Amino acid sequence: MERNKGNHKFVSGFSKKTKAAKIAWVTQHFAEQEAAQEVLNAYSHADTSRQNLHDDFIENAVANFYLPLGVAPNFLINNKVITIPMAIEESSVVAAAANAAKFWSTKGGFHARILGVEKVGHVHIIFDGDTAKLQHFFEAHKEDLIRSTEAITQNMRSRGGGITAVTLVDKTPLLAGYFQLDVRFNTQDAMGANFINSCLEQLAASLQELAKQYSPFSKAEKEIEVVMSILSNYVPNCLVEVSVSCPVNTLLETPEESTLFAEKFVQAVRIAEIEPYRAVTHNKGIMNGVDAVVIASGNDFRAVEAGVHAYAAKDGSYRSLSTATIKDGVFHFSLTLPLAVGTVGGLTKLHPMVKWSHELMGFPTAEELMQIIAVAGLAQNFAAVKSLVTTGIQQGHMKMHLLNILNQLKATAVEKKAAIDYFKTNPVSHHTVTALLENLRAK
Amino acid sequence: MERNKGNHKFVSGFSKKTKAAKIAWVTQHFAEQEAAQEVLNAYSHADTSRQNLHDDFIENAVANFYLPLGVAPNFLINNKVITIPMAIEESSVVAAAANAAKFWSTKGGFHARILGVEKVGHVHIIFDGDTAKLQHFFEAHKEDLIRSTEAITQNMRSRGGGITAVTLVDKTPLLAGYFQLDVRFNTQDAMGANFINSCLEQLAASLQELAKQYSPFSKAEKEIEVVMSILSNYVPNCLVEVSVSCPVNTLLETPEESTLFAEKFVQAVRIAEIEPYRAVTHNKGIMNGVDAVVIASGNDFRAVEAGVHAYAAKDGSYRSLSTATIKDGVFHFSLTLPLAVGTVGGLTKLHPMVKWSHELMGFPTAEELMQIIAVAGLAQNFAAVKSLVTTGIQQGHMKMHLLNILNQLKATAVEKKAAIDYFKTNPVSHHTVTALLENLRAK
Repeated sequence: MERNKGNHKFVSGFSKKTKAAKIAWVTQHFAEQEAAQEVLNAYSHADTSRQNLHDDFIENAVANFYLPLGVAPNFLINNKVITIPMAIEESSVVAAAANAAKFWSTKGGFHARILGVEKVGHVHIIFDGDTAKLQHFFEAHKEDLIRSTEAITQNMRSRGGGITAVTLVDKTPLLAGYFQLDVRFNTQDAMGANFINSCLEQLAASLQELAKQYSPFSKAEKEIEVVMSILSNYVPNCLVEVSVSCPVNTLLETPEESTLFAEKFVQAVRIAEIEPYRAVTHNKGIMNGVDAVVIASGNDFRAVEAGVHAYAAKDGSYRSLSTATIKDGVFHFSLTLPLAVGTVGGLTKLHPMVKWSHELMGFPTAEELMQIIAVAGLAQNFAAVKSLVTTGIQQGHMKMHLLNILNQLKATAVEKKAAIDYFKTNPVSHHTVTALLENLRAK
Repeated sequence: MERNKGNHKFVSGFSKKTKAAKIAWVTQHFAEQEAAQEVLNAYSHADTSRQNLHDDFIENAVANFYLPLGVAPNFLINNKVITIPMAIEESSVVAAAANAAKFWSTKGGFHARILGVEKVGHVHIIFDGDTAKLQHFFEAHKEDLIRSTEAITQNMRSRGGGITAVTLVDKTPLLAGYFQLDVRFNTQDAMGANFINSCLEQLAASLQELAKQYSPFSKAEKEIEVVMSILSNYVPNCLVEVSVSCPVNTLLETPEESTLFAEKFVQAVRIAEIEPYRAVTHNKGIMNGVDAVVIASGNDFRAVEAGVHAYAAKDGSYRSLSTATIKDGVFHFSLTLPLAVGTVGGLTKLHPMVKWSHELMGFPTAEELMQIIAVAGLAQNFAAVKSLVTTGIQQGHMKMHLLNILNQLKATAVEKKAAIDYFKTNPVSHHTVTALLENLRAK
């Protein structure tokens, strides 16, 4: 098993090799080189022009990693019905989303609203001079700074976006000489990372140039050091809120079980508000739904994850992102999420499955996509907490995982059918599935 | 553009339809139904048995979402050389990883060590009785509780894992009646989610049963309420530490630029330690590398993301996960990450590209995979901060994104070649690429 561990060779100029040469080089580390090449070939698109497109997305691409693309129908959001595309490998996520969608479709559906769309970035600078002078310099040249970005912001401004605010923030109490140009943006339907970073780099260059010419500055003060210029994925003012609600006694079949369920549900969410060990997994469940749509829509899930979890920790303790209450006999469940996503630029027009997903959703604007993503998160959270406080998580999860176990044990179609029937009433585990197959095969 | 927005129909029994029927239903929302079906077909595996395998991963799968699978060679980790598989859509990530690998390959490489492998889960209970009695009950029956899981833990114990500790935690200061069974696990090479959840559900059932028979309890006390039983993705004791170091003056070409670079680098990381707006994006960069390997290795990136970001916020303020220092003329850069990942179970044996990735890495154990993943994170972080404090992030990023822009503008192979040459010395933006192509095409 360890034949190639640590025995890879150093290689020079790898990125400049042809794809075939890269594959020949990389598969030499495999026990069976031809089989390793066959897998890469089998997971390449048969249409060369389509494969070339995917290969151009990143450096050193050797194949395509398949994530299943599923669809979850029956989402009623702000009184409109939508089917949500989800790219996700975890077996129970699409099933849970579809169940939650169905559940709420007869109870008024999901309500979603945008609380803000502000993006943010910073020029991080070190200035070891007179703070008051820096502030005067900034105020005197603020408009010049903004004007220096006009070539970059022209298209965005024509679409109603652009730079919305620039402020100088004194961070010297935290670090000697540390100031920020804090820049706020409206990027319309773009996620805006490239736009924001280009603006920030221009602002940084202009700042340094203007400082050199600012006569009140001493010679040393004229040399403002730019440490870096970069957008932030922390976007607490780019927020969407989604919620569901219904009379407590209509939640399940009978008023009695409905009340018990609602109380237990609220308690479970309360625990996720006060206990970080639980909050992390609670929010992870939300992100199962969120990321599946983020990926399908061609957005960057690392950016969304980082912003969301930091938001969950903003009050000094890591907490649940969702809240549940019972008030005057009505059950309320809601979620507020920071989501900086785009529906233009990036891969949205390039990746065929991303294009497909956007059309399925009716070509949403960025604000509409924020709503859809957050709804997928709340739906996922509802389904997970519902399972947890009723049957336990394993029943539903293992039922969905059954097919994976059967495939691993190379079950035939006939055996699969028999197993699915059997496990309708028996608990699924690797052990019980193995035992059943052994039984079937011994017959 | 809005022809299908909100006009989807409700559908019953969707998950029970055949795949063909699901596709027929879902594509009716498209302007051109046949074209929409063709895309799904083109993104399905030509080999039906392979496609069936992928369809079984989740519910309602209609196609495969392609993530590019790239490889980053030249990683020297603990004196062994390895090529790392990365599944990622962001254009600059594999290139940055490969650059950082090459950079450190001649400077001693990456050092990695495991600080802990403990997983954790909880049975969350409500007990409205006498706390001292509950504690006595727990101590009296602790061994019975553990014994009740023996059938579930048998295989894991034979591999050296299992339940390592069970404690009763009083959380009543936070919420009336709230206690936890806090359960610690060693899950060897498995990520262990199913194992842990199955153990916890058994412990919960046993706890309730034993309480019913515990005579010191009052009638009410005998009815311990189990709110939920679930693993935690917060794993601060499942930790890996990775680092690089070298004499400051050997970092770049000359001692002078090396010193300047090292100081600016340390300053940039320091800013990410004290400023959450920066820390979030700094850590997002780490996760670019981490998630790419997590996905390629068949692990759950939402679980890893949640655990990592909560760990970054553990001291009350969201901070950088990496630290950089200069000490006695030596530059040190290190990263400590909580990572609960597995190399057996889940998709590891099922997904052909996951199997391929494991073989490329030499079939690592879970501890070795933790090290590889963390190294990918540190490499990514190094490359990003290096760009930020030298050329700025946009130069490298847009260079990698150039091919995407060219594909979007439907550039021919000849035009691409001309553009790549031109942009070696000119700044890339959507605007400049469009202008160049217009120029070329006007000739």
